[in-house]
Amino acid sequence: MPAPAISRFPVPALKDMPDDIRDRILAVQEKSGFVPNVFLVLAHRPDEFRAFFAYHDALMEKESGLTKAEREMIVVATSNLNQCPYCVVAHGAILRIRAKNPLLADQVAINYRKADITPRQKAMLDFAVKVAAAAHTASDDDFATLRDNGFNDEDIWDIAAIAGFFALSNRMANVTNMRPNDEFYMLGRVAKA
Amino acid sequence: MPAPAISRFPVPALKDMPDDIRDRILAVQEKSGFVPNVFLVLAHRPDEFRAFFAYHDALMEKESGLTKAEREMIVVATSNLNQCPYCVVAHGAILRIRAKNPLLADQVAINYRKADITPRQKAMLDFAVKVAAAAHTASDDDFATLRDNGFNDEDIWDIAAIAGFFALSNRMANVTNMRPNDEFYMLGRVAKA
Amino acid sequence: MPAPAISRFPVPALKDMPDDIRDRILAVQEKSGFVPNVFLVLAHRPDEFRAFFAYHDALMEKESGLTKAEREMIVVATSNLNQCPYCVVAHGAILRIRAKNPLLADQVAINYRKADITPRQKAMLDFAVKVAAAAHTASDDDFATLRDNGFNDEDIWDIAAIAGFFALSNRMANVTNMRPNDEFYMLGRVAKA
Amino acid sequence: MPAPAISRFPVPALKDMPDDIRDRILAVQEKSGFVPNVFLVLAHRPDEFRAFFAYHDALMEKESGLTKAEREMIVVATSNLNQCPYCVVAHGAILRIRAKNPLLADQVAINYRKADITPRQKAMLDFAVKVAAAAHTASDDDFATLRDNGFNDEDIWDIAAIAGFFALSNRMANVTNMRPNDEFYMLGRVAKA
Amino acid sequence: MPAPAISRFPVPALKDMPDDIRDRILAVQEKSGFVPNVFLVLAHRPDEFRAFFAYHDALMEKESGLTKAEREMIVVATSNLNQCPYCVVAHGAILRIRAKNPLLADQVAINYRKADITPRQKAMLDFAVKVAAAAHTASDDDFATLRDNGFNDEDIWDIAAIAGFFALSNRMANVTNMRPNDEFYMLGRVAKA
Amino acid sequence: MPAPAISRFPVPALKDMPDDIRDRILAVQEKSGFVPNVFLVLAHRPDEFRAFFAYHDALMEKESGLTKAEREMIVVATSNLNQCPYCVVAHGAILRIRAKNPLLADQVAINYRKADITPRQKAMLDFAVKVAAAAHTASDDDFATLRDNGFNDEDIWDIAAIAGFFALSNRMANVTNMRPNDEFYMLGRVAKA
Repeated sequence: MPAPAISRFPVPALKDMPDDIRDRILAVQEKSGFVPNVFLVLAHRPDEFRAFFAYHDALMEKESGLTKAEREMIVVATSNLNQCPYCVVAHGAILRIRAKNPLLADQVAINYRKADITPRQKAMLDFAVKVAAAAHTASDDDFATLRDNGFNDEDIWDIAAIAGFFALSNRMANVTNMRPNDEFYMLGRVAKA
Repeated sequence: MPAPAISRFPVPALKDMPDDIRDRILAVQEKSGFVPNVFLVLAHRPDEFRAFFAYHDALMEKESGLTKAEREMIVVATSNLNQCPYCVVAHGAILRIRAKNPLLADQVAINYRKADITPRQKAMLDFAVKVAAAAHTASDDDFATLRDNGFNDEDIWDIAAIAGFFALSNRMANVTNMRPNDEFYMLGRVAKA
Repeated sequence: MPAPAISRFPVPALKDMPDDIRDRILAVQEKSGFVPNVFLVLAHRPDEFRAFFAYHDALMEKESGLTKAEREMIVVATSNLNQCPYCVVAHGAILRIRAKNPLLADQVAINYRKADITPRQKAMLDFAVKVAAAAHTASDDDFATLRDNGFNDEDIWDIAAIAGFFALSNRMANVTNMRPNDEFYMLGRVAKA
Repeated sequence: MPAPAISRFPVPALKDMPDDIRDRILAVQEKSGFVPNVFLVLAHRPDEFRAFFAYHDALMEKESGLTKAEREMIVVATSNLNQCPYCVVAHGAILRIRAKNPLLADQVAINYRKADITPRQKAMLDFAVKVAAAAHTASDDDFATLRDNGFNDEDIWDIAAIAGFFALSNRMANVTNMRPNDEFYMLGRVAKA
Repeated sequence: MPAPAISRFPVPALKDMPDDIRDRILAVQEKSGFVPNVFLVLAHRPDEFRAFFAYHDALMEKESGLTKAEREMIVVATSNLNQCPYCVVAHGAILRIRAKNPLLADQVAINYRKADITPRQKAMLDFAVKVAAAAHTASDDDFATLRDNGFNDEDIWDIAAIAGFFALSNRMANVTNMRPNDEFYMLGRVAKA
Repeated sequence: MPAPAISRFPVPALKDMPDDIRDRILAVQEKSGFVPNVFLVLAHRPDEFRAFFAYHDALMEKESGLTKAEREMIVVATSNLNQCPYCVVAHGAILRIRAKNPLLADQVAINYRKADITPRQKAMLDFAVKVAAAAHTASDDDFATLRDNGFNDEDIWDIAAIAGFFALSNRMANVTNMRPNDEFYMLGRVAKA
């Protein structure tokens, strides 16, 4: 049986990619042991690829008042609402690893209100979900609630920007039929010895 | 740290349960190696417990034109729409085992339209999701589409009844804060040697 | 003109039913003067019939902090939201009888917020409607509001379980095209001398 | 016990009303045996009263390709979706009388898809419900479907205008807490000898 | 290129209209410099035309606790939610003129929560939007909030009635494909010298 | 009166911005005669600024099977659904200019189904709106419909990517309270001599 398609659109061969994109992909492969399909699918459009990952890194890799695990919680909770397989599966894996918790990603994806998270994290996800579904109603009251939970304004921007960026990402993944790599499903589910 | 609560409501001790309920629970434990929390949470109400599992078994354990894996697909797809952690996690495990496929449960839960399933199974889930969300619009056209996909009327009843039964189950699990057992998260994710 | 069908599915003749099911149906007929169609439609599936009515009785017939009329209010309000003719018409009749009030069922079905009910009953229906439509958001705040209105935790379980059970019932009635008996429409509308 | 309020707003005494409004109300009382509360509630605003009933009569009393019963079906189906007690109860009574059918109003209110109506009437209500809920999507395809069901363009205007007029009426009735007269609940439920 | 149609339905010539309707149209033309298409489209149904404008004038032209600009804000905010081109464009023009503010109409149409309006006006629009989308939930709490913002009960009736009347108007405009006159787009955008 | 704030967040002075960002802003100002506020608001986060505009340019400035005006239609239609004032007002202006049509932007924003556009453009916006609101349901059927309307797969990617990118943009603009510049409201409304 042939491997299932990872995109509705053409996926370029590594050798045909611009150098910077191939280099980034090889670096990810080196680090992760495989190439997450988002890199291959988006490589169909080099300029969009570069902007996408620059945006991603600006939000997900930098220093922030949100831990990296918290940022992944935002991705996982909003992506399941948007029914995006790639983002839930891939970022679920990252969340398990970042949080060193094999259960948390499924909990947050399905219903964060019941997850093993702090009240602060629940307030963060309440707002993230609001940004994902009804950003036009974001109000001073939401900012006040978040500040009461210990978030400053830069943190609030981060929550909104991550929920916003994955609004884009979820839509591209669903339209392209971006397929999660099989490797993601098990990542972080077993504690390392 | 104490174990997290598995219910908002009192959970009876095994010794305090009616014999038939305790016997069923011990049998499940014998078979599965642990007691799924749904048995403990619902044991708070013995009569409802008995009716719930009688209904469950009548739909999920009998002979049917739907395979057991297909029936679990219905549970998993509709339960994620209803944001029910217990049902997605527990029945996701059962689906992995029934289908002998470690990836399928997450695929079906998040967006069955992108899952590795047959067109027939996609038609089944289209109808199941309709029953879950808008059963009042179920029509002759839906029956015709299902028949075109090889389902007979008894199969259609099964699809509707499973989606309906888990409409109940999802609501009870969410209101009781029914917690999925930790064991479910890994079940069926690793092929047995 | 032939009598209209009461189900999309085959309806067994009384003589072909298992004894326990026939006995229950004859008992209902004896008491009510007619056989509500839900008994005939579900008799197509004896095991589901038994579980369904066992569940129903466990919720609707037992002692509870909710009066029988209050329990029927939950059925009627949530069933109209789910656009389920059988449940609104049949349980509307029962509500009129239980409450000895010929107007209440229509009021509660259409918009309970405007019905002649107590603030406590309005709080009950606020929660029941939430369970019917968005049980994943049921929260500690809802429990607190219900307690403030005089409900204890067992009552809250009852509200949720009734809304949940009729989530199932509404879906089966709509998919089977379960037809309300003509008798229900007038029951309880005229005070007995 | 005092009679329940029929409006959140002041209700003028007959003697304080402008002559034309009082005359209309007395005429209705003469004909119906009671004064439907919509007349009393809207009399608080004489100019709006006059425009409201002029509009109502222009749609509901004139010659039309829709029977008077069909026009009431539109009112009842859309008003229940809008959860408007006054309109469902009052126009349900009128529908029973116009159709000489004691069951039809409840059927159409709860779920017209299951009601004892013709395919043409079902197409009419499909469009009426679309106008009520999503008129911005009304399209040439809808017009074609209606024409295929025997409606001409004047009929289509009538369907839309009735659904539109009761969009207004439902909103006013809900905001004013307009109470249906007790008399409506029984009207048309018993065939006259 | 022929002028685009202003209605799906026949539009009568001025000379074929009843005198009172023609007179009104000529008066509007005299005052505005052009005939807004709503007059021509609705003239297809003289009785409805008369009732429509009588209702309109009763709400929009009379003395009220709401300024004329505030009343137009209600029209514009609810009409954009209902995706009604005629009402947003035509009443957007009127709002710009009434408020002597070339920016306000677009702000209020797109998201009044971000518009340059007072907290009182925001409360007014919160309620208007609720009436447009979910009038069945209008409650004592809404009345209390509005009173806290300086509205009396007559003002609240006005808000509801305007939102209700344009619920009707939006539906008729969308079903008839009522085309906004080109003139409206620029009206009020440039301050007069 | 002080100028209204253009963001809830700090807006850096030009002199404090990184050179590349200041240069881009000065270039825009040179070309447009003013600095659109999105540049100033996002300059608060230089890395996100760079990624945002790189993404924007990759989609909106390149060669494409969609004209620049068509791309702006996608922005305007989806942004009004998302109730985003900045994007509707700013891109409405750009659409008027690109299409050399002073009416089109308002038409497309409010209800593209009634706008003066081609059937091909209507199909484009049907899909764009689906991506904005329910990308998880994007299917082979949608691709087939678009191909029937003359779009190739690269065009379809463009439609999805633009709708996706503005899903992000709308959310950031709404959370930051990004204020449209006053200049945008009139741009393109008057044909140049």
